[in-house]
Amino acid sequence: MVDRVADYLDELEKYPVASGVGPGEVKSRLPGAAPLKGESMDAVMKDFEEIIMPGITHWQHPGWFAYFPANNSPSSILAEILTAGLGAQCMVWQTSPAATELEEVVTCWLRDMIGLPKDMAGVIQSTASEATLCSLITAREKATGFESNKKGLNSGLVVYASTEAHSSVDKGAKIAGFGEENIRRIPVDENFAMIPEKLEEQIKADRAGGLVPSCVVATVGTTSSGAVDPLEQIGEVCRRNDVFLHVDGAYAGTAAVVPEKRWILDGVEHADSFVFNPHKWMLVNFDCSAYFVKDAGLLVRSLEIHPEYLKTGVDSEVVNFRDWGIPLGRRFRALKLWFVLRSYGLEGIRDIVSRHMELAQEIKKRVEEHEHLELMAPVHFGLVCFRLNDGRGERELEVLNHGFLQNLNETGKMFLTHTMLDKKYVLRMSIGSRTTQARHVDAAWDTIMNTAGEVL
Amino acid sequence: MVDRVADYLDELEKYPVASGVGPGEVKSRLPGAAPLKGESMDAVMKDFEEIIMPGITHWQHPGWFAYFPANNSPSSILAEILTAGLGAQCMVWQTSPAATELEEVVTCWLRDMIGLPKDMAGVIQSTASEATLCSLITAREKATGFESNKKGLNSGLVVYASTEAHSSVDKGAKIAGFGEENIRRIPVDENFAMIPEKLEEQIKADRAGGLVPSCVVATVGTTSSGAVDPLEQIGEVCRRNDVFLHVDGAYAGTAAVVPEKRWILDGVEHADSFVFNPHKWMLVNFDCSAYFVKDAGLLVRSLEIHPEYLKTGVDSEVVNFRDWGIPLGRRFRALKLWFVLRSYGLEGIRDIVSRHMELAQEIKKRVEEHEHLELMAPVHFGLVCFRLNDGRGERELEVLNHGFLQNLNETGKMFLTHTMLDKKYVLRMSIGSRTTQARHVDAAWDTIMNTAGEVL
Repeated sequence: MVDRVADYLDELEKYPVASGVGPGEVKSRLPGAAPLKGESMDAVMKDFEEIIMPGITHWQHPGWFAYFPANNSPSSILAEILTAGLGAQCMVWQTSPAATELEEVVTCWLRDMIGLPKDMAGVIQSTASEATLCSLITAREKATGFESNKKGLNSGLVVYASTEAHSSVDKGAKIAGFGEENIRRIPVDENFAMIPEKLEEQIKADRAGGLVPSCVVATVGTTSSGAVDPLEQIGEVCRRNDVFLHVDGAYAGTAAVVPEKRWILDGVEHADSFVFNPHKWMLVNFDCSAYFVKDAGLLVRSLEIHPEYLKTGVDSEVVNFRDWGIPLGRRFRALKLWFVLRSYGLEGIRDIVSRHMELAQEIKKRVEEHEHLELMAPVHFGLVCFRLNDGRGERELEVLNHGFLQNLNETGKMFLTHTMLDKKYVLRMSIGSRTTQARHVDAAWDTIMNTAGEVL
Repeated sequence: MVDRVADYLDELEKYPVASGVGPGEVKSRLPGAAPLKGESMDAVMKDFEEIIMPGITHWQHPGWFAYFPANNSPSSILAEILTAGLGAQCMVWQTSPAATELEEVVTCWLRDMIGLPKDMAGVIQSTASEATLCSLITAREKATGFESNKKGLNSGLVVYASTEAHSSVDKGAKIAGFGEENIRRIPVDENFAMIPEKLEEQIKADRAGGLVPSCVVATVGTTSSGAVDPLEQIGEVCRRNDVFLHVDGAYAGTAAVVPEKRWILDGVEHADSFVFNPHKWMLVNFDCSAYFVKDAGLLVRSLEIHPEYLKTGVDSEVVNFRDWGIPLGRRFRALKLWFVLRSYGLEGIRDIVSRHMELAQEIKKRVEEHEHLELMAPVHFGLVCFRLNDGRGERELEVLNHGFLQNLNETGKMFLTHTMLDKKYVLRMSIGSRTTQARHVDAAWDTIMNTAGEVL
C-alpha cells in the first residue's frame, strides 16, 4: 500500500486532474450488499483500481488550481499511518496524555509561527466551519451571560460578516440558533474587504433597534478572492461596541509565516478567536484546523459536559480537549502537524508558500498584460481571479467565461473553479499545491492562452 | 512506518494498557518552538519513541476494557494509508465522485446489515455527537416550519432523553439553542431503559404548558450500562404526539449484525434518524460514524448552503454530502468502511462481535457466582457493570470500589473505567477490542480476583 501511494505521488501528472466520470457511474459498478464472506485484499485492490480510481479528483496534482489547496506531504502521510496504527481515541487527557500535550505544544508553535498574540491558546478542530461555530456559540453565551445554554436562545442576537465571508458563517449562525435574519452582511470596498465604518453603523443601528450585536466574523483571505478585512479597524469597532471578534484565516493564515505577509494579521490582538487550516496550505493532511482563543475558559464554559463516565482523577490538572469543540471523540491529529513542522521546519514551509505566491504574482502580471484578460481582484496570496473580457456585454461575458472554464477543465491538465465578484462570473486560479512548480504554472498558462484563443 | 505499525500490533501486550505519565510530563520534554530548519525523519521518530509512545494509552490492547472499544484493523489501516496518500477532499460530488458514491453505497450496505428500514439514506459523520446535533437541528426546523433557521430560535422547544442518555444530547441541545432547561431527562426502569409512559406524560405536560415537544432521543446501548430503550413503544409515543425521534445506537448498533440481537432495533421503523459508530465495534478506524435519516430532504433543507464558489454543473443530479452535516470539508472515509466490510465480510464481523458478547456473558456468570461481586445491570452486549459488595454501607462501598478500579488499572494489564448507576459507583468492563481473546479475559479475571482479595 505504501508503494502504491509512493507511485501515485510520483505519477500524479499522468492523471487528468478532475475525474471524468458521470453521475451514477461509480455507483452502478458496485454491488448492492456487503459480501457474506471476507474477500482477499487483492480482490479489493483490483476494484479500487478499476472502479474507485477513475472517480477520484486529484487534489495533490500539480495542475490543481481549484478551490483552495488541501495539501498532503510525505511526512504527513507517514504520521497518518502511525495514527491509524495506534488507533488512539484522544477525547480526554487520560485517553492518551501524549496526544493532548503534543496538541498543546504544536498549536503554540503554530501560534508563534504566524505571530498570533502569546496569550492565545490553541486546539485542533476538524474544519474551520466547526471552529467558527464554536466562536458563534461562545459569543452567544458571552452576550447572554450563559443564559442561552441554560434557558435556550431567545433570538435578537446579531452576527456580522462581510458580503464576501465564507458560507460557514451562515451555516454556523443557523445551527447556533441566531437565524438568517440576524446575520448582517457588511458591504465591502473595491478590494472586497469589509468596510469598518459600515460595520459600526450597522452595529449601532441594530442596538438602537433593540437587538444585541454579539459576534463579528472578519476574514483574512476570503474564499472568492483572497481579500483581507482590515483587522485593526474592525477590532477597534468591536472593542468600542463590546462585540466578540472571530477571525477566519482558514486559507490565508498560513501566509503569515512569511515575514512580508505578517501585515495581514495586523490588529489580530483585538480578536477573541482565530482559525486557520494547516490542512490547506501547510502540508498537513485534512483534517487539521488550528483554532486559537483568547479566553479558553469562556469557550470551555460554553461547551463543557460532565458525565460521570468521562470523569478522571486528573481533570483539575490537565486540559480535556473534548470541551473545546463540538465532537466528543478526537483523532490524534497533533502527530501529523508535529511531523510536518519538524520535517519541513519553519523555513521549509516559508519557501513553499513563498514560491506559490511568487507564481501567483507572475500569473497576475501576465493577466494584466494580456489584451483580453482582466484581473478581477488584488493578488495577496496564491489566488488569481481573472476573466476573459473582449468588451462584449456583461451577460455575454458570463456565458463566454463559463465556457472558457469548462474547456480549460476538460483538457484534464488543470482544474480551476469559479466565483462571482461584484456580480461578475470570475475564474479562480488558486496556486498552492505542494507539487506545483513554475513549469506547471507555465504549462497551465499555455493552456489558458490556447483555450482563450479557441473560445474567443 | 508500516513495519513499525505491524510490530506494534504484534507486540501490544508488551505495553501497559494505560499510559503512566503524569500531567505535564510529555509537554516538559518538548521544545517551545518549531525548528527553523527541517529535521530528518530519524530524529522525529527517535522523539516519537522516547517522548510520545510512553504517553500513549493503548486502545487496541487486548486488555482494553475501558469506555467503549475504538477498534482499528489491518484492512482499515491499509485504507487509511490510501486515503492519506490520495489526499482528496470530498465535500461535494465533483471533488471526488467515487468518494460520494462509495459512501452512498456502503452506508446502504450497513443499513441492510443491521436491519434498518430500506427507506433510510446514510451518510458518514465524524462522531455520534455530530449526528445527534444534526437530528436536533432537523427536529428544531421541523417543529418550527424552518422558522428557526430564518428568524432565529425563540425557545420553548423541548428535547427528551432518558436519564441514562449520552452527554452529547445535552451538548447538542445547548449548541442548537434549545437550552438546558428545555431538556427533559425521562426516568428509567430497573434495567436503566427509558419508561415510555413517563415520556408521554412529560410530553403532554409540556404541551399543556405551552411548550413545543420537538425531539426524543432514544438510546440503544447506553454508555453507562448498555441499556436498551424500548423503541417500539417510544416510537408510538412519538408518532401519536408528532415528535421527531432520533435513535442513538453509537456503541450497540453494531450488535444488530448478529441475528439474535436484531430485537434491539424492534420499532426502529418509527425513527426519523439513527446513528451508530462503525469506529467503535466494527473494526473501522475512528472517525466513521454512520448516520441514517428517513427524510434526507428535511436534513438537507436544515443545513444547506449555496455559495457561488461551491456550485457545480451537476448539483441537481448528485448528492453533495456537505449539506448532510456540520462541517464543509470531508475526508474520504467510505474507503476504510468498504475495505473492512469486504475483507471481513458480514460473517467475519458477526463472529468477532459474537465472541465479545459470549465473553461478556461468561464474565457476567462469574460475577453473579462470586460472593463479593455484584452485577449492576443486564448484560446485553460486551459491557459488564459490576462492583465489589461485601455488605458495608453505600458510602464505604464507593470508596472501596474507587480503590478497586485504581488498583486494577495500576497493574497495567487492563484498563477499565467507571460510572454511576442508581447513585452507585460501578466498574465498567467493556469487552470489545478486536484483539481480545478468551485468554485475555481469563487473565483479566484472575487480576480482578487477586485485586479484589487485596482491597477487601
